Amino acid sequence: MPTQAEMKATMVKYVERVNAGDADGVVALYADGATIEDPVGSPPRADRAAITELYRNAVATNVRLKILAGPFGSFANAAAMAAEVRVDVPVGFPGEGPKRIPLVEVMTFDDNGKITSMRAYWGAEEMHPA
Amino acid sequence: MPTQAEMKATMVKYVERVNAGDADGVVALYADGATIEDPVGSPPRADRAAITELYRNAVATNVRLKILAGPFGSFANAAAMAAEVRVDVPVGFPGEGPKRIPLVEVMTFDDNGKITSMRAYWGAEEMHPA
Repeated sequence: MPTQAEMKATMVKYVERVNAGDADGVVALYADGATIEDPVGSPPRADRAAITELYRNAVATNVRLKILAGPFGSFANAAAMAAEVRVDVPVGFPGEGPKRIPLVEVMTFDDNGKITSMRAYWGAEEMHPA
Repeated sequence: MPTQAEMKATMVKYVERVNAGDADGVVALYADGATIEDPVGSPPRADRAAITELYRNAVATNVRLKILAGPFGSFANAAAMAAEVRVDVPVGFPGEGPKRIPLVEVMTFDDNGKITSMRAYWGAEEMHPA
């Protein structure tokens, strides 16, 4: 199991790399076979190509993350944080324009500290004009 | 599926009832067969007697909850929030004395809006002197 400090440091790196527009650097934090459910209730992305596409698209929409609380660990291989996403939803997509989306992200980790799953809790009501 | 507003309103009620010391009122928000994993990584509590004991003990330690972020919904029957717990850890227990524990709580809900699971993400590092 990774240490609590390792998991939390990876979550902070995740935020830093998202904010630097480093999509490949974000993807490198994920283990092979990792899954992403963002938002929770949407079909999980379950392979590296889909995960890479997700973060390249996110970077293309000027995504930025600000931590609101955490990251917090657990007594297992899981950690969580509250954050606010800032994103420019592309023209033609639902909710087009600058948006802020406060949410909770829960991640699990493998023994090497790589992310094995990410689940983001936000609903349509969390999409606010930025 | 409950509405997003119903799930979030139940989480706010949960906080209010905890802060009112109303253990039975908190337990009444849970569905039959609900499970609690608090903290994540500890053995789940899986019956109403164990859940009742948990909240009666919590009330006995003057537990208080302050929402830090959220509650946020999802596109499924789940919602999450970041909160800070304030608790008087009893003398003789690990970390005895007044403590604040910031954490993330994730809950799932049944069709009637009752809580079917609660998972609280916090580790030993989240236990701070209050």
